[in-house]
Amino acid sequence: MSKPNTSEGLISVYPGTFDPLTYGHLDVIERAAKLFSTVIIAAAESTSKNTVLDINERISVIEGSVKHITNCRVEKFSGLLVDFAKQKNASVLIRGLRAVSDFEYEFQLALMNRKLAEDISTVFLMPHEKYTYVNSSLIRNLAMLGQDVSDFVPSPVQDALRQKFSK
Amino acid sequence: MSKPNTSEGLISVYPGTFDPLTYGHLDVIERAAKLFSTVIIAAAESTSKNTVLDINERISVIEGSVKHITNCRVEKFSGLLVDFAKQKNASVLIRGLRAVSDFEYEFQLALMNRKLAEDISTVFLMPHEKYTYVNSSLIRNLAMLGQDVSDFVPSPVQDALRQKFSK
Amino acid sequence: MSKPNTSEGLISVYPGTFDPLTYGHLDVIERAAKLFSTVIIAAAESTSKNTVLDINERISVIEGSVKHITNCRVEKFSGLLVDFAKQKNASVLIRGLRAVSDFEYEFQLALMNRKLAEDISTVFLMPHEKYTYVNSSLIRNLAMLGQDVSDFVPSPVQDALRQKFSK
Amino acid sequence: MSKPNTSEGLISVYPGTFDPLTYGHLDVIERAAKLFSTVIIAAAESTSKNTVLDINERISVIEGSVKHITNCRVEKFSGLLVDFAKQKNASVLIRGLRAVSDFEYEFQLALMNRKLAEDISTVFLMPHEKYTYVNSSLIRNLAMLGQDVSDFVPSPVQDALRQKFSK
Amino acid sequence: MSKPNTSEGLISVYPGTFDPLTYGHLDVIERAAKLFSTVIIAAAESTSKNTVLDINERISVIEGSVKHITNCRVEKFSGLLVDFAKQKNASVLIRGLRAVSDFEYEFQLALMNRKLAEDISTVFLMPHEKYTYVNSSLIRNLAMLGQDVSDFVPSPVQDALRQKFSK
Amino acid sequence: MSKPNTSEGLISVYPGTFDPLTYGHLDVIERAAKLFSTVIIAAAESTSKNTVLDINERISVIEGSVKHITNCRVEKFSGLLVDFAKQKNASVLIRGLRAVSDFEYEFQLALMNRKLAEDISTVFLMPHEKYTYVNSSLIRNLAMLGQDVSDFVPSPVQDALRQKFSK
Repeated sequence: MSKPNTSEGLISVYPGTFDPLTYGHLDVIERAAKLFSTVIIAAAESTSKNTVLDINERISVIEGSVKHITNCRVEKFSGLLVDFAKQKNASVLIRGLRAVSDFEYEFQLALMNRKLAEDISTVFLMPHEKYTYVNSSLIRNLAMLGQDVSDFVPSPVQDALRQKFSK
Repeated sequence: MSKPNTSEGLISVYPGTFDPLTYGHLDVIERAAKLFSTVIIAAAESTSKNTVLDINERISVIEGSVKHITNCRVEKFSGLLVDFAKQKNASVLIRGLRAVSDFEYEFQLALMNRKLAEDISTVFLMPHEKYTYVNSSLIRNLAMLGQDVSDFVPSPVQDALRQKFSK
Repeated sequence: MSKPNTSEGLISVYPGTFDPLTYGHLDVIERAAKLFSTVIIAAAESTSKNTVLDINERISVIEGSVKHITNCRVEKFSGLLVDFAKQKNASVLIRGLRAVSDFEYEFQLALMNRKLAEDISTVFLMPHEKYTYVNSSLIRNLAMLGQDVSDFVPSPVQDALRQKFSK
Repeated sequence: MSKPNTSEGLISVYPGTFDPLTYGHLDVIERAAKLFSTVIIAAAESTSKNTVLDINERISVIEGSVKHITNCRVEKFSGLLVDFAKQKNASVLIRGLRAVSDFEYEFQLALMNRKLAEDISTVFLMPHEKYTYVNSSLIRNLAMLGQDVSDFVPSPVQDALRQKFSK
Repeated sequence: MSKPNTSEGLISVYPGTFDPLTYGHLDVIERAAKLFSTVIIAAAESTSKNTVLDINERISVIEGSVKHITNCRVEKFSGLLVDFAKQKNASVLIRGLRAVSDFEYEFQLALMNRKLAEDISTVFLMPHEKYTYVNSSLIRNLAMLGQDVSDFVPSPVQDALRQKFSK
Repeated sequence: MSKPNTSEGLISVYPGTFDPLTYGHLDVIERAAKLFSTVIIAAAESTSKNTVLDINERISVIEGSVKHITNCRVEKFSGLLVDFAKQKNASVLIRGLRAVSDFEYEFQLALMNRKLAEDISTVFLMPHEKYTYVNSSLIRNLAMLGQDVSDFVPSPVQDALRQKFSK
């Protein structure tokens, strides 16, 4: 067994709903971009839950927030994550781990994904501890109540949330 | 911010006591070797606990067990892990995550290491679920009782344990 | 830094949905009332989930259940909890911790609240272990099935649930 | 039931080994000092494990580190914690909660203490998330390796550790 | 106190939604069937969540999947589980435990059930670790996306899901 | 597959150090005795940690505490637990689960034991929640400090501890 002959390095996929993208997500993206040649941020097109921002809004604010990271791009996806990853020739799935409660769900998902596609590895990264409490659901609540969320999300996200909730 | 210009790719360090190396460790090493250019297995020279195998025995059985992985090597280390990693120009620390109880200790360690060396990332990999219950302490107990441990450790480890406990 | 000059002692807020109030909640309220000058039970007016008892019913049964505690009162609240606490000059948020699964959500919430209002401390109290398994959701299920819930909730709550489900 | 008539407010006890005191401990002490009239830091005299600093050294560095908090003092204790608390007329035990792994041990201890002394409440406080990874054991290791620990412990602790390990 | 005089042995009930039955469930049923005289698989008739398979479909595929286990049968139930168990003269409730996140919910439920019916014991069994990641919700998602689920569910379940989602 | 033809029912083994036996252990034994024909309490002869009571004292106080349970007996064991179980024709291992922290260790052990002896099932029982905080280590500490432990352990254990620590 040896290192695969990858002249261009490894492609990784960072999947999520990103409703909205937070500084915690951004921190994971920045870390992944240092480890792998390409990071494809895969925004889930349709989810069982209604999203505050629609898929195009979510993609647009992510693009606005990752301009400084040259080796990453955003794409929408639907269907099976490992199929999306295969289409993109990705061999790595990126997941952030913040807390024990994340851990077990992420583990089940990673095991299932490995069963479905043995060649794709899940890699867990740890966002900065200052983002431990920053999750999209709390952000949505704050934004809905008209609170300032500039400590938790990049400015394109702030603008999108402000527009959405001042309507 | 962009991907560092690393013509030779990233060097990673996988630290541990490895008393003894198990198939769970080996599985993590094989996964890491697919992700990074080099994997340095860093065996802790002296630990607070007494080890069953001494540092040279541990290194020797690891070397015997990873011959099929061309981009990894074994080294002993003492002192601060991040200092060792810096000496080796490594930018990645590898850790295996099996269970929730691993998780919190690993997290504290990773946060502390990030505080001590911001440029070195900890990457968590997930060994195969069939190794969930394989830990070095249970293996030592089995070997001490003269049990067959061939399902849990590579053959160089079996030999070393058999010799040790038949003395 | 020194103890703030509070001639009247500290005001605390115990927030929740209380759908319905259980003996577990009551236990936390009684403990808080021994520690702080005032305990304001803050019943969340509108929640994302539909409640079995409406906000006025919930407040009414809480009031009926805490008559013996002289330094507590019930109020409805909506919007941001820390804003409500500030309006009330409260410097303490009370939360009950029963189980590990409570722990992480409560921690995220407490960290977020501290970020939003640095001067307000979250204090965790532990209800009696005999209430470990008493949660509002299980109580609602039992009441819906016509079961006796007198072991789990004070009598004003029993009456309200009986009325609701015999309709 | 009503608030006890305490003209002087409540006395609290914050027990620990403090080998050594960290910024995480200090953060809990500062928070407790805002909630209760008096905080007695109770340093465990003899513990099953050997300590790096002896009881007098530990008390001395704590005293040097809490001078800015007017309503706290340090005492050594041995024997049963609730007996110590009773002698001091304390009605509150303070514990810091950082992580899920703290949680269960702390819970068992708190339940046992409540069984032994029903009138004494355990109150859990949450240190700042930036101290999540700061624990005494990691600090001792760093100090032993001659590392700078000024980010993790107050300066009296740094001095004591430097002296200890340069001997 | 002594073993109850049960000429026919103990009756056990294994409750669940089984939407759908997985190899993980089947593994628990097989283990329970070795321990107790009778295993009644109790499929919850109506649940708060919509099921993919209706109650008759779920019962039918379970029956098709457990033909090889002579001492088990399937029944629908609604209302309180312990009442169902009493009607069946069952003295044991079976629950599978896969992960820490299962644990606390199962514990609360088991404590509540013990409170409601002291004579009925909850017995926890551990499915094979290779089913750790197999849960009904992930299976439903895979089936919905037209994926092969033959590694995760018995063939009667595969057929039912294929029919359902090819409609 | 069918229920094994066991005219005499199933033999179970409940292993532990029992230093000392607590009411929590006794509760598990009583529950197990209702489920299985025979419960063999297997006291670990030699453990890595020093015990307060030696193996004969531990066995003697257990025997004194379980006289009312006709279908259980106490035996010492050393070596591999599953070998002991096989010698006794036991097909069930009993373990008590109190808390999440118990859970993972118990799970690893159970998985390992299943690997070593596929035919022996581990069955987890839940002691009464009032024993959540009763563990042998806290009991030993209380006894060492001369405290009354009658709420936590049966009277033969009390007597043995009193004798031991008044020496």
